Amino acid sequence: LAVVGVGLLGGSVALAARRRGVASRVVGVDRAPNALDYALATGVLDDGSPEIAPATAAADIVVVCTPVDVIASHVLTAAAAARPGTVLTDVGSTKGNVVAALRGRLPSGVAFIGGHPLAGSHHNGPAHASADLFEGRLVVLTPTPETDTAALQRLCDFWQALGARVRLMGAEEHDRAVALTSHLPHLLAAALAGILPPELDDLTATGFRDTTRLAAGLPGLWTAILQANRGAILAALDQLEGQLQRFRRTLTEEVARDLRSLLESGKIARDRLDTD
Amino acid sequence: LAVVGVGLLGGSVALAARRRGVASRVVGVDRAPNALDYALATGVLDDGSPEIAPATAAADIVVVCTPVDVIASHVLTAAAAARPGTVLTDVGSTKGNVVAALRGRLPSGVAFIGGHPLAGSHHNGPAHASADLFEGRLVVLTPTPETDTAALQRLCDFWQALGARVRLMGAEEHDRAVALTSHLPHLLAAALAGILPPELDDLTATGFRDTTRLAAGLPGLWTAILQANRGAILAALDQLEGQLQRFRRTLTEEVARDLRSLLESGKIARDRLDTD
Repeated sequence: LAVVGVGLLGGSVALAARRRGVASRVVGVDRAPNALDYALATGVLDDGSPEIAPATAAADIVVVCTPVDVIASHVLTAAAAARPGTVLTDVGSTKGNVVAALRGRLPSGVAFIGGHPLAGSHHNGPAHASADLFEGRLVVLTPTPETDTAALQRLCDFWQALGARVRLMGAEEHDRAVALTSHLPHLLAAALAGILPPELDDLTATGFRDTTRLAAGLPGLWTAILQANRGAILAALDQLEGQLQRFRRTLTEEVARDLRSLLESGKIARDRLDTD
Repeated sequence: LAVVGVGLLGGSVALAARRRGVASRVVGVDRAPNALDYALATGVLDDGSPEIAPATAAADIVVVCTPVDVIASHVLTAAAAARPGTVLTDVGSTKGNVVAALRGRLPSGVAFIGGHPLAGSHHNGPAHASADLFEGRLVVLTPTPETDTAALQRLCDFWQALGARVRLMGAEEHDRAVALTSHLPHLLAAALAGILPPELDDLTATGFRDTTRLAAGLPGLWTAILQANRGAILAALDQLEGQLQRFRRTLTEEVARDLRSLLESGKIARDRLDTD
């Protein structure tokens, strides 16, 4: 197993694969010496390298865990060095841009299938990696009509061995879904936190903190994600602004019954998530 | 001590006062027999009653913990039965409406001071009450120019004995602040949860769940709160929509640097809250 990018997700993939006996040898790639040193010192990796090609040349599975705007180029570098039969995947939050950038550009015998584990943390870096990060979580894989079935099966087995459930979706369908379930919440959390003046910090309680938790994410990573999926995010934002308009109307026109029914539809949806 | 309304907050006030030896006798009022039975059976209350007047006639401090649209009328009923020297307060999320409704209407010798503990839970009911709910939390008190200083001091001492920090603010200043720090986050959480179609439930992860957690609150309670503070909430919603417009512009015009700086201002504010 080769993991390119040893941060929270890459570190967790490496750790989970090692603890669960999924890979006999785990090699990591990171340009940041700190991340590699940490992962080597804590036994997460067998070996580390700042370069992709030497690390991925002997791998059966390569998982690219770098920011969404550089995934495609890292996959191409890894694929050029890989042996035939190697399966490459990624963990990026957007899939359409990656799948499109790689279409028809991989050496024959090497497969790429886009992936996105719906797991994460507002913490960053390999020190927060966890062998159980994927336990019970959903991993979306986005095969195309050209995807090799055997490669897809190997990747499904890999993620299931790490404790995850696998769901297959088209890349565009995935991007539309996560625009609403992940990217819009991030944008909202950042917008709400961004209008809090410091003199009101003391007047925030757990509600504000929960609602804005995502705003602590790394701005560089999220700039790339929001840009890569901007069409779907703008559509999700339209939907949200329509719903905010409905709330606004119930407040300006003082229609208590309509306000209550808007709050009830939110509660019904939120309560559904806790019974899953 | 008399507690009117034995739900999450009322139950926690009673429990904290008993555990910390703040009151020698704790009497509860609730029209729901279940809530009273539960609180009596678990030793939270010494006595319970469905009626306000008999329960508050012998109290030194009366804490009204009912929904914001009925607080003022419950305070008036309690005040009419109270002995001179009794201090009445409440725990409602809005203060302007309560303070205005009570101005000049209390019997002489009886003091009312508005209160709002910035503590809560997305759980409801006395079964979730906790003796530590107020530990380290802020309680806002909203005295007016007419407030008796000795009564204010007694109420400060009371909340501090329950583990809280006390901050004095004008009722309008309080309402403007919590419109942004509490009511707007609630509205946003409900709006976001409300646009989630069930087929995307499976594609939500901790980020969506954190951001929408407040939407699980009781719609009836929150309808009353949002209506009572609608002017300030509409102003806070304007501010948020301005910030969402800024995000929208960075996405439509693809200005990565501006998008990143919006995300950074959100992160700076959110990180501030964790170091408090």
